[in-house]
Amino acid sequence: MPGNLRVPAGLDGVTITDSKIAKSGSDGSLVYRGYDIDELARNAGFEETAFLVLYEKLPTSAELGTFSTRLRSEAALDRKVFDVMRSIPSDSHPMDVLRTALSILASLDRHESTDGMEVSIAAKMPVLAANSLRLPEGLEPVRPAEHLSLPANLLAMITGREPTKLELWTFERVMILYMEHDLNASSFTVRVVASTGADPYAAVTAGLAALKGPLHGGANEVAMRMLLELKDPSRAREFVESAVKERRKVIGFGHRVYKEFDPRARMCKEYLRRLVDEYGKGENLYLLCDALEKEMWVRKRIPPNLDFYAAPIFYLLGIPIPLYTPIFASSRVFGWMAHYNEQIEEKKLIRPDAAYVGPSGLKYVPLGLR
Amino acid sequence: MPGNLRVPAGLDGVTITDSKIAKSGSDGSLVYRGYDIDELARNAGFEETAFLVLYEKLPTSAELGTFSTRLRSEAALDRKVFDVMRSIPSDSHPMDVLRTALSILASLDRHESTDGMEVSIAAKMPVLAANSLRLPEGLEPVRPAEHLSLPANLLAMITGREPTKLELWTFERVMILYMEHDLNASSFTVRVVASTGADPYAAVTAGLAALKGPLHGGANEVAMRMLLELKDPSRAREFVESAVKERRKVIGFGHRVYKEFDPRARMCKEYLRRLVDEYGKGENLYLLCDALEKEMWVRKRIPPNLDFYAAPIFYLLGIPIPLYTPIFASSRVFGWMAHYNEQIEEKKLIRPDAAYVGPSGLKYVPLGLR
Repeated sequence: MPGNLRVPAGLDGVTITDSKIAKSGSDGSLVYRGYDIDELARNAGFEETAFLVLYEKLPTSAELGTFSTRLRSEAALDRKVFDVMRSIPSDSHPMDVLRTALSILASLDRHESTDGMEVSIAAKMPVLAANSLRLPEGLEPVRPAEHLSLPANLLAMITGREPTKLELWTFERVMILYMEHDLNASSFTVRVVASTGADPYAAVTAGLAALKGPLHGGANEVAMRMLLELKDPSRAREFVESAVKERRKVIGFGHRVYKEFDPRARMCKEYLRRLVDEYGKGENLYLLCDALEKEMWVRKRIPPNLDFYAAPIFYLLGIPIPLYTPIFASSRVFGWMAHYNEQIEEKKLIRPDAAYVGPSGLKYVPLGLR
Repeated sequence: MPGNLRVPAGLDGVTITDSKIAKSGSDGSLVYRGYDIDELARNAGFEETAFLVLYEKLPTSAELGTFSTRLRSEAALDRKVFDVMRSIPSDSHPMDVLRTALSILASLDRHESTDGMEVSIAAKMPVLAANSLRLPEGLEPVRPAEHLSLPANLLAMITGREPTKLELWTFERVMILYMEHDLNASSFTVRVVASTGADPYAAVTAGLAALKGPLHGGANEVAMRMLLELKDPSRAREFVESAVKERRKVIGFGHRVYKEFDPRARMCKEYLRRLVDEYGKGENLYLLCDALEKEMWVRKRIPPNLDFYAAPIFYLLGIPIPLYTPIFASSRVFGWMAHYNEQIEEKKLIRPDAAYVGPSGLKYVPLGLR
């Protein structure tokens, strides 16, 4: 019945379902399928973690081998998809290009099983992501190399060269951190679409739509542009002061769940430190981030989130800013598929109520008499 | 904080926000912006109702004229979009084609204002819908005529001829009934995407993804295929009996809100009766629907919903079954836009919690030792 139970705006603090996928805690913890994120980021590879998120356990060597092979062999794309991406104007946002490309893949898929569709989507996403900026610009498509892992291929396709060991290690860690985050807005979107019985392509297309928003996945881009505009660490104080005064939200700070600290941001800050040290460049960028973090904490008690520290890492790795969110998508898609599967199992349409606060009992007045 | 408030699965009976758009009541009532649906379906035109849903009041003659003109002039499509639709395999579902086409429009849009984008999306949707089946089949595109209204154009483009007065009247009524229904799964999807700050194209693409599901917009197609398979009214009893025994859901029956009757289904049943009488065909189809309705009520106390009675109307109007949901979309898009605008005003990310019920404290075991 409508109006039975009124909950806070934005479903803030509202538990809507059980989940065995992941848990982010207000104490700054994050668990994927029972493993602490720190445990995974220290030890596991990206594909291993993807297997874990999707199939609920860490793979054996044989299972990982099969999974990696599937991801490689499913990455091949129909020329039609590249043609469509090429026909899109060059000023389009890569997230729009990615969404269109993923949507059209639905029409080309010939898999019978949901699992087949899911692996195909996840395998193709990095190729679509890496091409989402260059194809509209009229450049030739880049394709994955047979001998590289999914994250290595994604980075190599974007930068045009094989990453160094440190570059790959860092990039792979950030991608692991981006993979899953319980009921974030895009995963929730995926679940709402899944609840109607729609297929994984429909659900992921919708997830991509949600991820574009500046309050969600789009945040890493916005954060990077802010860093580039500020440039000088000495401007951090003035910037935060004026944001406080004007009640402006600072993108890259704050999180619905983490109030004290975002564990992923902490880890990325360490990765950034190491990258700056070994690269011998980006020191100023690090100092700027650090200064902004301190000012935001002193004045607003708001900690930085993953996007804030992932952005400068991507920047130092030479990744064009409009590709930050497509990279996020290439990782999060594994989480989306896990949520899709869990929601399908639940067999229940997600359909909330609204309290109607508009007028009532109005009478139609014929057009000429209004 | 996670776990603060646990609500029923599927957000069933959970009021998540205030809305001034529409209200469906368990007593079988439905109101758009203060007007009873019966009042509107008896008196108003489709474009008039669309204006009401979008701008919160019935238009004056001048306002309606301007709105109609905008809808006509914004309906023109870039040749690129037709090219993409033509490149999609002919066995694709029109809803997939429609979603891809709408998604690519995001990259071609040059409007500065949200309202401009919204009118453009709504104006183009019927043209995309009418072409979503024929272009992949290699047929030439159909385009709207200057002198016809949005619903008249949609029906004419699909059937290849101008509708008779009765046909248009009936079709327009059904489209009015499909326009808005508070927080149904697709409108809720639109709101979740809007809450991230994404643009109207992203939100509507996601809405289309949700609408495809057989538990939502896809239901009208499934219902029609069931009617065609059953054919004979005398088979209704046996069909319902076996569905009850096998605990099979009968698509076209039941609704999260309406437990006694769906007012839209009642009205459509009358339209169907009138259409059958004036057409002099479809009597058997009407009797089959009526028999199924009676059996479902006697055995399960579940009333038919809008999809169940809209389907045979579309069928008698000569509309190919795969276009039923695209037609639904061409109407509902006005409701989606109203929800988009309301959500943007709310300025709050929709981000619920899940109760984690998986394992915890697992230790990483190196790959070779598993």
